[in-house]
Amino acid sequence: MRDGVTCPALIVHCVSCHTFQSTMAHNHHHDSESYHGDPLDTPSPTEERESDEIEEQKHFQKVLMALAFYRRHSLIMNNRRRHDYNLISQHHKKLLPDYLQKVDQVDKLIEENALVLKEIVKASGIFSETEVQASIMNNRGKKPPVSPSDMDKVRSTLKQFVRDWSKEGEPERQAAYEPILNELESIYKNMPLEERGQVRVLVPGAGLGRLAFEICNRGFSCQGNEFSFYMLFSSNFILNRVSAPEEFSIYPFIHSFSNIRDSEQQLAPIKIPDVLPSSLPPTADFSMVAGDFVEVYGDNDKSEGQWDVVATCFFIDTAKNIIRYLEVIHKILKPGGSWINIGPLLYHFENTPGENSIELSLAEVKEIAEKIGFTITNEKTIPSTYTSNPNSMLKYVYECSFWKATKK
Amino acid sequence: MRDGVTCPALIVHCVSCHTFQSTMAHNHHHDSESYHGDPLDTPSPTEERESDEIEEQKHFQKVLMALAFYRRHSLIMNNRRRHDYNLISQHHKKLLPDYLQKVDQVDKLIEENALVLKEIVKASGIFSETEVQASIMNNRGKKPPVSPSDMDKVRSTLKQFVRDWSKEGEPERQAAYEPILNELESIYKNMPLEERGQVRVLVPGAGLGRLAFEICNRGFSCQGNEFSFYMLFSSNFILNRVSAPEEFSIYPFIHSFSNIRDSEQQLAPIKIPDVLPSSLPPTADFSMVAGDFVEVYGDNDKSEGQWDVVATCFFIDTAKNIIRYLEVIHKILKPGGSWINIGPLLYHFENTPGENSIELSLAEVKEIAEKIGFTITNEKTIPSTYTSNPNSMLKYVYECSFWKATKK
Repeated sequence: MRDGVTCPALIVHCVSCHTFQSTMAHNHHHDSESYHGDPLDTPSPTEERESDEIEEQKHFQKVLMALAFYRRHSLIMNNRRRHDYNLISQHHKKLLPDYLQKVDQVDKLIEENALVLKEIVKASGIFSETEVQASIMNNRGKKPPVSPSDMDKVRSTLKQFVRDWSKEGEPERQAAYEPILNELESIYKNMPLEERGQVRVLVPGAGLGRLAFEICNRGFSCQGNEFSFYMLFSSNFILNRVSAPEEFSIYPFIHSFSNIRDSEQQLAPIKIPDVLPSSLPPTADFSMVAGDFVEVYGDNDKSEGQWDVVATCFFIDTAKNIIRYLEVIHKILKPGGSWINIGPLLYHFENTPGENSIELSLAEVKEIAEKIGFTITNEKTIPSTYTSNPNSMLKYVYECSFWKATKK
Repeated sequence: MRDGVTCPALIVHCVSCHTFQSTMAHNHHHDSESYHGDPLDTPSPTEERESDEIEEQKHFQKVLMALAFYRRHSLIMNNRRRHDYNLISQHHKKLLPDYLQKVDQVDKLIEENALVLKEIVKASGIFSETEVQASIMNNRGKKPPVSPSDMDKVRSTLKQFVRDWSKEGEPERQAAYEPILNELESIYKNMPLEERGQVRVLVPGAGLGRLAFEICNRGFSCQGNEFSFYMLFSSNFILNRVSAPEEFSIYPFIHSFSNIRDSEQQLAPIKIPDVLPSSLPPTADFSMVAGDFVEVYGDNDKSEGQWDVVATCFFIDTAKNIIRYLEVIHKILKPGGSWINIGPLLYHFENTPGENSIELSLAEVKEIAEKIGFTITNEKTIPSTYTSNPNSMLKYVYECSFWKATKK
């Protein structure tokens, strides 16, 4: 990162200096399932910091292990298909002569995915290949030390690469990122490109960083903030370790055989990245910051009034208490600054055991935003999928709510 | 049922005689989660019949208990919202002054849903109200004797009523049922309405019976076949126990607060049924048969060549081995008979622990259908949701495959 960031969080990676640091300057846990936090709005006391850092390290390790164990877990899941095929009658087998060939092919593509995940682990610089290999060897013959939900997250991570860094993800980016970029262009239409580097845009929930990258690509300075280590490790890899477009091939749609039109499509590679992430205008700053949005930006006064624009894309429903998100966005914006939002309201913590969650309707969210001190304009509904297989017979279509809100 | 059915299964309910029988003439288990069957294609031996019947009774009871415990379970889930609201700051509470009122209103609507579910249990005629009340009293203060997945199924059952028997379900029925009805009309366009009663149409996976009812409504004789007791009890209720259109109000979208545009919409009643199910042409037979499709129609020779049309709607992916479904459909059709299909390929048993599952691509399904002895024509792709909240910000859109296949 080129400019001084006024938050206490770790800078996880930076296009210019290519560093990835594991030290956390603040206390929190990453990824929802390991977060058993204090009641809403109550910060953890300082004396808990040390044990929090140990927890943090454990969680680091857990995520890296999940990435490392993807191969073994996926091969076991795929082997179930061989087992089930062997149980059908000879007559049925004759009707399906190529089935096992397809299952074998999926094994090979799991290995290909595993190679990319290995690069992600390697790029983190936290564990050596020897350490990862040692852990895999130690667990040989045992149940892998990762949960099915960890494995879900690894598979979702592969799909995030499609959304953010492949040509197949273009329709999703057109639907969800373009409206934000157009709004930015419209706000700063009278500002020459070379001056735009002074405009500071924050993207909470930055995922694999494409939206933040595109904002920078249009000349603005942009900081992405992300909570999930799956996303942080993966964005570090794609932003800092890739040297050519389409350098890697992934196969994100081989794990389920449901809703597939034809196998050839299903088994085809997705090439990443579609563009080289290191090509950015020299006047714009680009950085990624690890940590929980409220803890990084809300819990310190230095963040106040620091940002010209906050752009949230499929983010606000990750809150346990969305009012707190709205307040922090309002606080960190400069007077007259803009909050641009697009996304649904799929509250991530609704009905999560042990978690608190406040779920508001769209009407309630907008009403509270006005009460907090925003003026909402430019409202639209924009349908969009999210990390979808473009060839699947099933699509989750979000009727996203879009708006620009100006800090009064 | 008016005509003699050539299968060994129980007739569960009948518009003309209004009976509901609990005796099973065949051995199987209902609902996926309790089915731990033999390897595919291997029928259970006859000596296991008695213990199977006990299992069947237990499962009956389990489903009825889930319907009965919906109220208590849902009130507990909703109470979590009060708890979480109480944990937010006074300042936030002031921003959300009506929140607890909404939570109270949801409690009332849970009670309304529970009244309808009570009618369903009562209509089954299996347990008396006293027995159900006794079981609820016995479990007071204990964890309800039902699993979260049972409760999911009860909530899904409420949504099935929207799809099949409400005006809000009209768009889904237009998308999924109309193409089948149009195809039937096209095949029998030269046959006068009064003769159509001779045409025998089978609807496997009939759910709450609307498609089968609409087929009858166009003069054809139609038998619905259904495996799930949730659906069987509920279709018995709606087909045989309702005396006026819009007699009951249900509230199927109160259980999740995610992706809600405004609370008023969310809390509005869905009135069922939109039409009175007992109004059918006198020349057409209408019946519903309980049981697994392969066991009821595949495992006995009397079913062979008995049906003019088999209409499958969101059904073929419920198979553990879809080839077996295709073979049975082929076997029970008369020569030259038609199989009309619409739906996706969301294989219900993919990755279900302890279950075998063969998942084929659409191309493979069609190839095998041709090999078995079908000629596929009239292919289209039709997008449709399934038991969707029409006002939700998230829709699962299936790109359904439609075809007519003629038995060679």
